[in-house]
Amino acid sequence: MTENEQRLYETRSTSPEVKQKGRIRVVIERVAPEIDGGRFPIKRVIGERVLVEADVFADGHDSISALLLYRRKNDTQWTEVTMTSLGNDRWQGFFEVTELACYEYTIMAWTDRFNSWQSDLSKKAEAGQDISIDILAGARLLYEASRRAPAADAETLRKWAHVLESNDIADAEGKKALALSTATARLMNRYPDKEYIITYPKELKVMADRKKAGFSSWYEMFPRSCATEPGRHGTLKDCAARLPYVASMGFDVLYLPPIHPIGCTNRKGRNNAAVAGSDDPGTPWAIGTEEGGHKAVHSELGTLDDFRHLMEKAQEYNIEVALDLAFQCSPDHPYVKEHPEWFRWRPDGTIQYAENPPKNYQDIYPLDFQIKNWQALWEELKSIVFFWIEQGVRIFRVDNPHTKPFHFWEWLIAQVRESYPDVIFLSESFTRPKVMYQLAKLGFTQSYTYFAWRNTKWELTQYFTELTQTEVREYYRPNLWPNTPDILTEYLQLGGRPAFMARLVLAATLGANYGIYGPAFELCENKASEPGSEEYLDSEKYEVKHWDISRHDSLNDFVGRINRVRHENPALQSDRNLSFHLTDNEQVICYSKRTKDFSNIVLVMVNLDPRYTQSGWTDLSLDDLGLNDHEPYQVHDLLTDARYVWHGSHNYVELNPFIVPAHIFRVRRKSRSEKNFDYYM
Amino acid sequence: MTENEQRLYETRSTSPEVKQKGRIRVVIERVAPEIDGGRFPIKRVIGERVLVEADVFADGHDSISALLLYRRKNDTQWTEVTMTSLGNDRWQGFFEVTELACYEYTIMAWTDRFNSWQSDLSKKAEAGQDISIDILAGARLLYEASRRAPAADAETLRKWAHVLESNDIADAEGKKALALSTATARLMNRYPDKEYIITYPKELKVMADRKKAGFSSWYEMFPRSCATEPGRHGTLKDCAARLPYVASMGFDVLYLPPIHPIGCTNRKGRNNAAVAGSDDPGTPWAIGTEEGGHKAVHSELGTLDDFRHLMEKAQEYNIEVALDLAFQCSPDHPYVKEHPEWFRWRPDGTIQYAENPPKNYQDIYPLDFQIKNWQALWEELKSIVFFWIEQGVRIFRVDNPHTKPFHFWEWLIAQVRESYPDVIFLSESFTRPKVMYQLAKLGFTQSYTYFAWRNTKWELTQYFTELTQTEVREYYRPNLWPNTPDILTEYLQLGGRPAFMARLVLAATLGANYGIYGPAFELCENKASEPGSEEYLDSEKYEVKHWDISRHDSLNDFVGRINRVRHENPALQSDRNLSFHLTDNEQVICYSKRTKDFSNIVLVMVNLDPRYTQSGWTDLSLDDLGLNDHEPYQVHDLLTDARYVWHGSHNYVELNPFIVPAHIFRVRRKSRSEKNFDYYM
Repeated sequence: MTENEQRLYETRSTSPEVKQKGRIRVVIERVAPEIDGGRFPIKRVIGERVLVEADVFADGHDSISALLLYRRKNDTQWTEVTMTSLGNDRWQGFFEVTELACYEYTIMAWTDRFNSWQSDLSKKAEAGQDISIDILAGARLLYEASRRAPAADAETLRKWAHVLESNDIADAEGKKALALSTATARLMNRYPDKEYIITYPKELKVMADRKKAGFSSWYEMFPRSCATEPGRHGTLKDCAARLPYVASMGFDVLYLPPIHPIGCTNRKGRNNAAVAGSDDPGTPWAIGTEEGGHKAVHSELGTLDDFRHLMEKAQEYNIEVALDLAFQCSPDHPYVKEHPEWFRWRPDGTIQYAENPPKNYQDIYPLDFQIKNWQALWEELKSIVFFWIEQGVRIFRVDNPHTKPFHFWEWLIAQVRESYPDVIFLSESFTRPKVMYQLAKLGFTQSYTYFAWRNTKWELTQYFTELTQTEVREYYRPNLWPNTPDILTEYLQLGGRPAFMARLVLAATLGANYGIYGPAFELCENKASEPGSEEYLDSEKYEVKHWDISRHDSLNDFVGRINRVRHENPALQSDRNLSFHLTDNEQVICYSKRTKDFSNIVLVMVNLDPRYTQSGWTDLSLDDLGLNDHEPYQVHDLLTDARYVWHGSHNYVELNPFIVPAHIFRVRRKSRSEKNFDYYM
Repeated sequence: MTENEQRLYETRSTSPEVKQKGRIRVVIERVAPEIDGGRFPIKRVIGERVLVEADVFADGHDSISALLLYRRKNDTQWTEVTMTSLGNDRWQGFFEVTELACYEYTIMAWTDRFNSWQSDLSKKAEAGQDISIDILAGARLLYEASRRAPAADAETLRKWAHVLESNDIADAEGKKALALSTATARLMNRYPDKEYIITYPKELKVMADRKKAGFSSWYEMFPRSCATEPGRHGTLKDCAARLPYVASMGFDVLYLPPIHPIGCTNRKGRNNAAVAGSDDPGTPWAIGTEEGGHKAVHSELGTLDDFRHLMEKAQEYNIEVALDLAFQCSPDHPYVKEHPEWFRWRPDGTIQYAENPPKNYQDIYPLDFQIKNWQALWEELKSIVFFWIEQGVRIFRVDNPHTKPFHFWEWLIAQVRESYPDVIFLSESFTRPKVMYQLAKLGFTQSYTYFAWRNTKWELTQYFTELTQTEVREYYRPNLWPNTPDILTEYLQLGGRPAFMARLVLAATLGANYGIYGPAFELCENKASEPGSEEYLDSEKYEVKHWDISRHDSLNDFVGRINRVRHENPALQSDRNLSFHLTDNEQVICYSKRTKDFSNIVLVMVNLDPRYTQSGWTDLSLDDLGLNDHEPYQVHDLLTDARYVWHGSHNYVELNPFIVPAHIFRVRRKSRSEKNFDYYM
């Protein structure tokens, strides 16, 4: 026992004697899930299960009992769940999170003298050996337990013990039956000998989020481009008027790039020109003017009242508004004068602007977190978040969190969640994998991913296996974006409309959380600023756009259909239920998701080639689909409403990218007898 | 930062300010090796390397520096090793253990402002940007470092800083060169800004053992069967006379079953008969009579002086004598009278004998560790170990450690190692894998394995991959026994002499530590007590045997040859250097071991079928052998002295089990030019 274990044991033990080291025989090891030795919580949404496993064993051959304990943090009482043995000393138990709270769980185990005795007794009895002395030994155990039990049970235990030790030799069979009965075991198991109990020394944590943390459909839109007539700067009111359109496509989160005053000094012009023209609006991420900073609304967009109105309107459409947290300043931000100590000063008396050598971003000053009085900076940034929370915002998309200290995010998110456990933070970090994972561990509710750059079957399979089938899934909730204002991938540039459709299906079905940057997306906008670049030509980041959302070739109906499919199929509302299936064509990817009880099974096939029709044979893993080799099943294409009857693993598919490059099949098993062949559930 | 990290950080930080949380940006994670969160030490023998890896990263894009720190436990000074980046935020460093001690290691890392500055500067300079202000910023860093440096270096740093900030515009090139020079970097790296350093909060441990812990050849022998003439009870003197024979086979550990007085009450007869005949000697594991217990020598074997004489004689042959620690008592053991509280009493006033229902071992009383005064029992058992250590014993084979508490072994081994770090404990635990691994983690130097029951190519490959290529290798040192007095496998029973040869080669080349129970082994004794049993017929456990070690069909010369090969080839003296190679015949297993520098490469092939000649083609992984496709190489069979010139991966082998069922090839690469084709190194 390490010092720490010893201390915890001593604190927890209900034994009258704490120095039990020499008598404790159980080991609890390799508890899962446990992130970095318990340093970080796992994540769940309300209604989800926490399945806990551990190695539990002792020396010798005695029986072991193990309990999974859980509680909401700060509750004093644990709820106990009996763990079951999976064989090879592995044990399992589970509980469900039901409230918006932090939960804790741990494990307790002991060598069970009664169960060991009962199991030995049964073997001896079967071998026909004399068990009279053993029965007496059992009576002792019952007497001991009676001293730990409340009056009624104590009475029963004493009565039974008395029977076992009676001299009535004629009743040997009755004694044996009592000794070996499950009723005796059940009662005895309620009063184990706590002298031998060991508790796992860590209390592991679960962050329980609201359901939207695990299932959400995002739409990113620049309010300034929402004016109905070309040439006018859009407002938050225009943005509110666009809500029915967003709702018609089935989105439930509307994410707005920063809505704060945009700096003038060193403002960037159209297409990222170093010098802005006089009517260039600048990038919304260069935050702050004399008008105000992160708590102000850009006057051309409207007022704080307009924002509150937008929030109310959105609620009518079941849409939540997400704001952008971009903790950086334009040279005109009030902080620059009020808190010069929050910036890094250069020897020539100027402030260091953002740079990623040799690139320079003169319109943006990063905040310097490595300063003596970092606490004041942290508090101010926190006050920004609380300001918007007080306006009703509950979802934040956080810009570049990987350029601010990890400890800061851990503190900030914990502070927010203490008062507002329903707040969702999406980490917009596109950097090295370990940094992205770290941010998720620290508390970010959802995270952007490398999805945009995973295009081949192998890439997608590898990446989504890592995200959904390894420990990563315990803390990292992927949010899949086929495009963003910064990311117009080569695949979309070259593949056009079929590529947009395929990537949309992939994002919306591989990820329970996904989003698109529109209307650029549904209008299949795919002209890059220059060859080899992922920047949009005439990017909305630097200018006001006017989008013709009524264009007949818009994908808006297709998007709406897909979001409806997501809402109607619970299988698509989770990430960890993903299974990949084989096909004999490298351009055809195939995967499925299903609910735990197989009541909803969705099978997706996508043609990854935006230029040619691709066909091939599937090699489905029937187990993952809850199917067998004996019965046919129906696949119902939720995109086209076509239905096919399939049988077994091998089925033919053909996907024309110029019609629909994907199938999203609802799989229905036969629910009736042969007489009703056509009915599938 | 967890509380624990915070506390450790505060203790360790060399910063004047301890509350640096807001400025610390580096994360150190996933350190390997680290067993169960640092709860257990890893194991090494003197001269072996500890290769340490970790994820080390920070927010943003700053350069990172990382140090591996190590020291002998209780030393105050750490030795620092610069870690190198492997890419993807993984870092690596190593050190060698050179003394019989416990070592500690940890990691320290920081964001390096100077290196970040230098790297940015170089990119800007390449892009032709104005770097004059940046150079001034660098000068500041040099001044700051000068305040942390001792006089001479401080002087240099100030001088260089002065150059960088001079107004001499003409010398721009000189300033740039100085700023970017590796000399500047080297000096700056000696005085990093400790305000930003983070230390991994755990001090991980390495148990350094003597070389024999990692490479040993064991011979188990019953002294009572060493008499030169049949019918006489052998003595320790006879045993000493057998030493030249043991040495001629190349063994360096002679392990004796218990040499203590053997109990009379309920003594077992020949072939485990429930009642012993009057001249039956009983099993040596039923320890203790009125003569004495675990500190006494069985009078029929001789005296303690005879034992000391055996120890001295053995030393002359470079053989160490290993004793058996079997912590259990015969009913006649003095403890039964002196310490009745150390046993479990049954309700009828008798002591509970050993049982594994429905099997009963009436001649043995187990000690009861779950007693109130367990400390006294622990101390007494410890005194047994120290008693034999004081007689010169440094190796113990521990009988059934898995039936005694884990904490007891951890304490006992730690107590012993504190005074005698050269003591080796071999765990004789044949039980569930997690229990066997746990005992190794707790301190056992070597452990028996499932080797005896791993006979097919698939079984051997799987098992030895787990033992040598996973984390298990960090704490579990396998000791491979093809037979023991308890284990005569079906493979040996049915396969006869070819099976003994094959299993010997496998044990001696798959494992750096191995042993045989002789003379039963070299005499190919393979008659089982009954069909389906692994017990020997007329087992030496229950009677005195007389072995004719001079039999012409003895494998003693073959055993000697194999032990010589082991001694002459350092590749065979380690476990973690094992690689398996493919062959196209399931009966032919192929694997290799090599030294780190490829100076010694051994390639082994064994025919696993003891009945038929098997042949096939290898598919060697040339990389693992340090070979290439362009040049031929020589394989020299160390068993038959045959030499072949091979080329590439695919080579033909044919193994006749009735001649030699194995090749043990020394692989020699060409060391000369074409003109000396025959010379291989």
